[in-house]
Amino acid sequence: MELIGKALIAQGGGPTAVINQSMAGIVAEARKYKQITTVYGALRGVEGLINEDFIDLTQETSFNLDQVAQTPSSALFSTRVKPDANYCKEIFKVLKAHDIRYFFYIGGNDSADTVHIISEEAKLDNYEFRAIHVPKTIDNDLLVNDHTPGYSSAARFVTQAFSGINLDMKALSGIYIGVVMGRNAGFLTAAAAGAQKFTEDGPHLIYLPERPFIIENFVADIKKVYEQYGYCIVAVSEGIKDISGTPIIVSLLKDIEKDAHGNITLSGTGALGDLLTQTVKQGLGISRVRSDTFGYIQRCFPGCVSDVDQHEAREAGEKAVQFALSTCCNGSITIHRIGDYAVEYKLTPLAELAGKTKYMPDDFINPAGNHVTDAFKNYLRPLLGSNLPSIAKLIAPKVPKILRKD
Amino acid sequence: MELIGKALIAQGGGPTAVINQSMAGIVAEARKYKQITTVYGALRGVEGLINEDFIDLTQETSFNLDQVAQTPSSALFSTRVKPDANYCKEIFKVLKAHDIRYFFYIGGNDSADTVHIISEEAKLDNYEFRAIHVPKTIDNDLLVNDHTPGYSSAARFVTQAFSGINLDMKALSGIYIGVVMGRNAGFLTAAAAGAQKFTEDGPHLIYLPERPFIIENFVADIKKVYEQYGYCIVAVSEGIKDISGTPIIVSLLKDIEKDAHGNITLSGTGALGDLLTQTVKQGLGISRVRSDTFGYIQRCFPGCVSDVDQHEAREAGEKAVQFALSTCCNGSITIHRIGDYAVEYKLTPLAELAGKTKYMPDDFINPAGNHVTDAFKNYLRPLLGSNLPSIAKLIAPKVPKILRKD
Repeated sequence: MELIGKALIAQGGGPTAVINQSMAGIVAEARKYKQITTVYGALRGVEGLINEDFIDLTQETSFNLDQVAQTPSSALFSTRVKPDANYCKEIFKVLKAHDIRYFFYIGGNDSADTVHIISEEAKLDNYEFRAIHVPKTIDNDLLVNDHTPGYSSAARFVTQAFSGINLDMKALSGIYIGVVMGRNAGFLTAAAAGAQKFTEDGPHLIYLPERPFIIENFVADIKKVYEQYGYCIVAVSEGIKDISGTPIIVSLLKDIEKDAHGNITLSGTGALGDLLTQTVKQGLGISRVRSDTFGYIQRCFPGCVSDVDQHEAREAGEKAVQFALSTCCNGSITIHRIGDYAVEYKLTPLAELAGKTKYMPDDFINPAGNHVTDAFKNYLRPLLGSNLPSIAKLIAPKVPKILRKD
Repeated sequence: MELIGKALIAQGGGPTAVINQSMAGIVAEARKYKQITTVYGALRGVEGLINEDFIDLTQETSFNLDQVAQTPSSALFSTRVKPDANYCKEIFKVLKAHDIRYFFYIGGNDSADTVHIISEEAKLDNYEFRAIHVPKTIDNDLLVNDHTPGYSSAARFVTQAFSGINLDMKALSGIYIGVVMGRNAGFLTAAAAGAQKFTEDGPHLIYLPERPFIIENFVADIKKVYEQYGYCIVAVSEGIKDISGTPIIVSLLKDIEKDAHGNITLSGTGALGDLLTQTVKQGLGISRVRSDTFGYIQRCFPGCVSDVDQHEAREAGEKAVQFALSTCCNGSITIHRIGDYAVEYKLTPLAELAGKTKYMPDDFINPAGNHVTDAFKNYLRPLLGSNLPSIAKLIAPKVPKILRKD
């Protein structure tokens, strides 16, 4: 029996460079089917849902929809609000009133949880509809998925940024610490490894939330690299923790700020980088130690997008509509790697990934816990997309000295 | 009378995304002339000059030279060492010993000063040679020049970064402060204005070193924007100063680090951004205030390069060789804007710009001192190059509410 009614799209959590590809994929695909009478977009995620802040996406031009698809960040805006059972009951009143039968929520594991709660609520209410979660997160921390849309483009940014920083520090020497987003999963920080081309290239050290961060080892590791190459590039996750599991940043900030999900604010402050810089300066007596916190620059940078990521985000949106119409199941679109390199999309029960976190597997992290393995580099490479900027160095021979013969 | 001998190239100061274009332009052009017997490169600027650390660039393949030209940062490496008279005397012994008759130094106003000192020393020594300074600085603070190679690509990075941040903050609301490089000249911070497309787009406020930074005005300005648009994007130069001319950062850092030129270290720390964030949080009672310090990410980012900048950097290198061979004068290659938009290159006496700083002209800064003018935007636009990523937003109409009629 055909389920006829409106479709509604929302975007949740932190934005990415390709989240609008998924939105455009849903809109373009949904318009093809007569069962879907209209396609609405909810503004600001579940906030727009509960407040009936909808726009009619069937009135977008195809050209503008395609332009928006190529624009980073969430065109429907987003929210950090996490709905409880009462919030969801209010949402259902809205869904029924507007005859919405297809709900697509593009987001991370918190958003998958939201879809899960709403779909469970729908069953209790005997309200027939399809709720599909479309994956999105630069953290790449969704279970079941090989990787998630948004990650590959942010990874490309981190790779390119460390390529440039490696060249910069090679020219002027010194020690550099780049702090990359990643609360619990180190995938994005690990992407710095994509910058290594020549033997001496950084990042020489990579510290991830999956391994305890021991400050003495950190300083000793840097000393060793600096003595070998005359400079040292380090990538550090913002979420690195001590042996007890306490984030290193926690001991630094007097007023810990938390969001509605109980998460500590890690980005938008240079405190972690500055602490590590001071520690290295004091520990090694080297003055040229620099740190940057990549912060908000890395997740929505226009013009540094992986084409692989764009296509997959688009397809994930299209598949969401196709699954919604061809099956009677709710679920999450998941991406699975086949061969080297292709992907297929499946519909996975929400409970398998909602509210859960995927971590870097052990075989992606070196035994010393201060870098990645070749297995991770092979995993990363196809995701970065085509036309990565080429990096070269001079190979000319040395000229014999005349005055200062060695 | 033809001056026959070797040519030598060095790169000084902070690297840029296109400094190797100038180097490759010099090498490729110099190889065409029989007067220039060999082309050497000095490693690490004047440090390599005094230590005879040379490589033979005539033994580079054309392909690799072109690949290096497209690679950011200084392929010959750089130095912050500033030579005094004794240092220059040592350099002359080396120049004579190697029969170097053409010296090309790619750098900023400090490097122009170095070329000036060396060429004066040459005159005193009656050593016949040509010394040409080739401009390079992301700060865009060289006198006589309309703009300098390296600026346009860094400006493109800043423009694109603020485009992405504007979209990010529009999606999640809040206040964002981006700290951009620029010790005394605000050109690079001002380039954030390139991100404004739609009426509501940030950066809504831009603070430059050319105007005194008054913290009360800063907080009041943000409050006004936040009330109007629901979010606020701010671009701040790392070199902002109080009414007495003291850098805002100075009052923050206990141990002020200075380089060999007496310059205070402003980059590689998030301290200024964090102070401003705290000030805004306390002043306005808004919790979602974020700050990023662009730091070293902005000046050598591969894949975010202005093609206009690439071509001009290349041509500046070629013109340096042509002027060295066709005139008997030392000098600095300067770039002059003709029409809208083209440039021409001149050879300018070193004394006109060596060691001096160009600031943002008054007609580029708005009367309130918290943004740029259209005159600056018109100045900036052609420099950013072609194929800037397009930014779009949804224009679909609102859907009437059913349950919560306004």
